Amino acid sequence: MNPTQQAIQDRKSVRVFLDQPVTPAMKEQLLEAAFQAPTAGCQQLYTILDITDPERKARLADLCDHQPFIATAPVVLIFLADCARWPQVYQEAGCEPRPAGAGDLFLAVADACIAAQNVVVAAQSLGLGSCYIGDILENCEQVRQELALPAQVVPAAMLVIGWPTRQQQQRKKPARFARNYIVAENQYPTFTGEQHRQALEDRAARSGNETFDFDQWVKAFEQRKYGSDFSREMSRSAAEYLKDFLK
Amino acid sequence: MNPTQQAIQDRKSVRVFLDQPVTPAMKEQLLEAAFQAPTAGCQQLYTILDITDPERKARLADLCDHQPFIATAPVVLIFLADCARWPQVYQEAGCEPRPAGAGDLFLAVADACIAAQNVVVAAQSLGLGSCYIGDILENCEQVRQELALPAQVVPAAMLVIGWPTRQQQQRKKPARFARNYIVAENQYPTFTGEQHRQALEDRAARSGNETFDFDQWVKAFEQRKYGSDFSREMSRSAAEYLKDFLK
Repeated sequence: MNPTQQAIQDRKSVRVFLDQPVTPAMKEQLLEAAFQAPTAGCQQLYTILDITDPERKARLADLCDHQPFIATAPVVLIFLADCARWPQVYQEAGCEPRPAGAGDLFLAVADACIAAQNVVVAAQSLGLGSCYIGDILENCEQVRQELALPAQVVPAAMLVIGWPTRQQQQRKKPARFARNYIVAENQYPTFTGEQHRQALEDRAARSGNETFDFDQWVKAFEQRKYGSDFSREMSRSAAEYLKDFLK
Repeated sequence: MNPTQQAIQDRKSVRVFLDQPVTPAMKEQLLEAAFQAPTAGCQQLYTILDITDPERKARLADLCDHQPFIATAPVVLIFLADCARWPQVYQEAGCEPRPAGAGDLFLAVADACIAAQNVVVAAQSLGLGSCYIGDILENCEQVRQELALPAQVVPAAMLVIGWPTRQQQQRKKPARFARNYIVAENQYPTFTGEQHRQALEDRAARSGNETFDFDQWVKAFEQRKYGSDFSREMSRSAAEYLKDFLK
């Protein structure tokens, strides 16, 4: 395994940071990694917001399902899928660009997430820890106001970054599913209920969970995630962002 | 710069490959990098299709805006945003999951793109070249049929991977925009037409393009990209995929 593969392997989400700043030079290195990511037609279809204002961080922590560790994270970066910039460029050149559509948004979301993941890998290689905050997609109306977003700009990913505590460094990385549950050849696979059950039991066993009860665990997980208020809010909010792309 | 940062820096899109296979062991290493990526709630909200059937590759090359190099690429991976798997798991445990919404899709698209980018970085570290094919989002109806996709599964990213030719290795990586055109502090920035113009002129200068004419270049670019048939098709197709998430 080469050092890059090792960094990818070792990376796990870090939510507790030392009270130690990330230097501006290091932040520059992280942003450089974002810039070097592949980007459709070299367009860089994203804007990166570097959230430095402590009060804004605190409000975002609240808007992102009330997670206080966001407010104290040394670095908070928001990767915006930006479908506003290029149409402005086109207009400046005298073109009359069409309104942005759902395809433009998907392409920009991909661009933004690809750039974000380069930051995650680069951070790991520098000894920094990071965590994605999917909740940035919630509360469309307040987030738009907080970040001054035009209608064609949508938060695609949010990262908090800092120096991991020893406890976070020693935390075990959760096991992934078996390869054949996630990767298929040529066409989308179908699984029986029993196969789903086995896939989760297998993962739990590899995580060292010897008392795993499928029905009990899945029911509790469904309540905490998919059936939760924040999850419903995420879909309401996402649909709100989409409105301007589906006219 | 450490080896991981170097790999990120050196990576550029590769579209011409040597006629030399990527070994199964190496493909395993690439998939392992995908699996080690951050994933919301450790759910791995993606399915990865490994397209090995040459005839299917050829049809996908055609469906992806007629790009023949896809048909001959040694490795073709499609990262599907998968909002079908977990609801099936929930049902198996006796839950009655709500229908998948736009928020679930965005979260799964992010998960899929994040995993894909880990593959890109790992590939680079192994000497392999790669290229994203955004066009996989086009032609919803045919792609669904070709890949046997259920309604809750959407292609988020496609990668072609192989050994780069010497010409591709020596190709100059295109310059990115200046930092302050893409990164802003705390809130979304606004730029005047003149500032957009300067940003593109600056980038062209750093690319060594000494005869760059903003109006001419942007008009041609707009026609080739944003105003093109494939771009409109991408938005039509994406809106079609979205229908099932906006009910």
